[in-house]
Amino acid sequence: MNVLLVLAHPEPASLNGSLHRFMRDRLEAQGHSVRTSDLYAMRWKPTLEAADFPARDAAAPFDPALDSLRAFETGTQAADIEAEQQKLLWADAVILQFPLWWYSMPAILKGWIERIYAYGFAYGVGEHSDSHWGDRFGEGSMTGKRAMVVTTTGGWASHYAPRGINGPMDDLLFPIHHGILYYPGFEVLPPYVVHRTGKVDAAAYARIEQELGARMDTLFSTAPIPFRRQNHGDYEIPALTLRPDIAPGRSGFGVHQVPAEAQAIAEA
Amino acid sequence: MNVLLVLAHPEPASLNGSLHRFMRDRLEAQGHSVRTSDLYAMRWKPTLEAADFPARDAAAPFDPALDSLRAFETGTQAADIEAEQQKLLWADAVILQFPLWWYSMPAILKGWIERIYAYGFAYGVGEHSDSHWGDRFGEGSMTGKRAMVVTTTGGWASHYAPRGINGPMDDLLFPIHHGILYYPGFEVLPPYVVHRTGKVDAAAYARIEQELGARMDTLFSTAPIPFRRQNHGDYEIPALTLRPDIAPGRSGFGVHQVPAEAQAIAEA
Repeated sequence: MNVLLVLAHPEPASLNGSLHRFMRDRLEAQGHSVRTSDLYAMRWKPTLEAADFPARDAAAPFDPALDSLRAFETGTQAADIEAEQQKLLWADAVILQFPLWWYSMPAILKGWIERIYAYGFAYGVGEHSDSHWGDRFGEGSMTGKRAMVVTTTGGWASHYAPRGINGPMDDLLFPIHHGILYYPGFEVLPPYVVHRTGKVDAAAYARIEQELGARMDTLFSTAPIPFRRQNHGDYEIPALTLRPDIAPGRSGFGVHQVPAEAQAIAEA
Repeated sequence: MNVLLVLAHPEPASLNGSLHRFMRDRLEAQGHSVRTSDLYAMRWKPTLEAADFPARDAAAPFDPALDSLRAFETGTQAADIEAEQQKLLWADAVILQFPLWWYSMPAILKGWIERIYAYGFAYGVGEHSDSHWGDRFGEGSMTGKRAMVVTTTGGWASHYAPRGINGPMDDLLFPIHHGILYYPGFEVLPPYVVHRTGKVDAAAYARIEQELGARMDTLFSTAPIPFRRQNHGDYEIPALTLRPDIAPGRSGFGVHQVPAEAQAIAEA
């Protein structure tokens, strides 16, 4: 299979750099084809701006969405954007690897998403009607592909626990998992998270390689996070709120997953 | 009072551009001093990188945290970083204004945070002990200042409602409100959010100006979001988990706010 590794760390001689090379080697040893977008090494430009669309009408106000659509449809996007889109189309699985900076991905990676997720490519795809609100959240250009986050924090696991002061890691990652990856159709795997990066000694590093190696070996068999599909009955359209009889009385990020018991019933 | 407006939108002739100018004029009419960091107009560099620290040892691996600390302490940060830090120190209130792109702030603004939030300035401040885990979450360099998010979405309010498919807006903004603004000591005001930006006609725009104008007029009197303080007894240290007897059995972002009834008791 084809695996795209997207790395957002400025220093090759870092924990993230080591883990990147470990993943690449492990995946290749399994027979996969691996490509890398090492955003710092590529000096990726994070800023989405009018200059990304050289064929646009320079006299008109810049519209990030519509100018992106026109450029995508007419093949006039900036070359670096198009190259990364082609890597996504090539990949069967995409791994986003980054240190958690200020509770989210580094700016260089956020800007990779913003620039290559063109209107017509990652959003604004498919029919828009009273029963189908575009191909998204379970459908879209990335359907059939898998995605996974590998991230590191200086803080302790308990700081990111369900009652930890930073908020639960699953909730901090929801905008990435659900809003960035599931949105255009990826199946999203549970993340792999390294905590207390400042305390990773040889023993801890060996344990991390063992765990992360197992995750690489099961990249195409691990069960994805069971997010609900938008256009298959769980949501009212166009309000896009969960139907009152589903998870009644509950709210928040968690309601957008099918509970384990319901999955078991559906699969029986 | 001194107000810093931070704008992250690429087009002045946009809804965000109009709202920025409206806020600036309204605040100035109230007698406030207003400064603006218009990140696109400034061509702000979002990428935190070794070159930001010209005095660092170029032979050593780049450590984003420690190199930032050394540069902050020795006055050798890049000039653009230092200038923005001075604006934060000058301000009594900071307003971050941006379109919500992929459920978070645009990369150019995320990179403004990453670069100017130096170790020693925005984090790694204060005593670290068994009873005090640094000056953060209610203490820190920004103590006494207020902050507020003004953001826009193409999607409907219902899509961001408690059971909306995107997740509740308050939860999507938690990593910014709590993790970026409350962390170094800001009091964080409730956000002002414009939905369905594609449908803002003259009547809707007039209503937005009325609402946003009222928010500007009450910038220094609106009650902040009652996030819990880290070092004042609500959390176990060093685990930094909420004490078992507080919000027992509950978890998620919401537990890090003092409930309204407890506030009323504390103030009585």
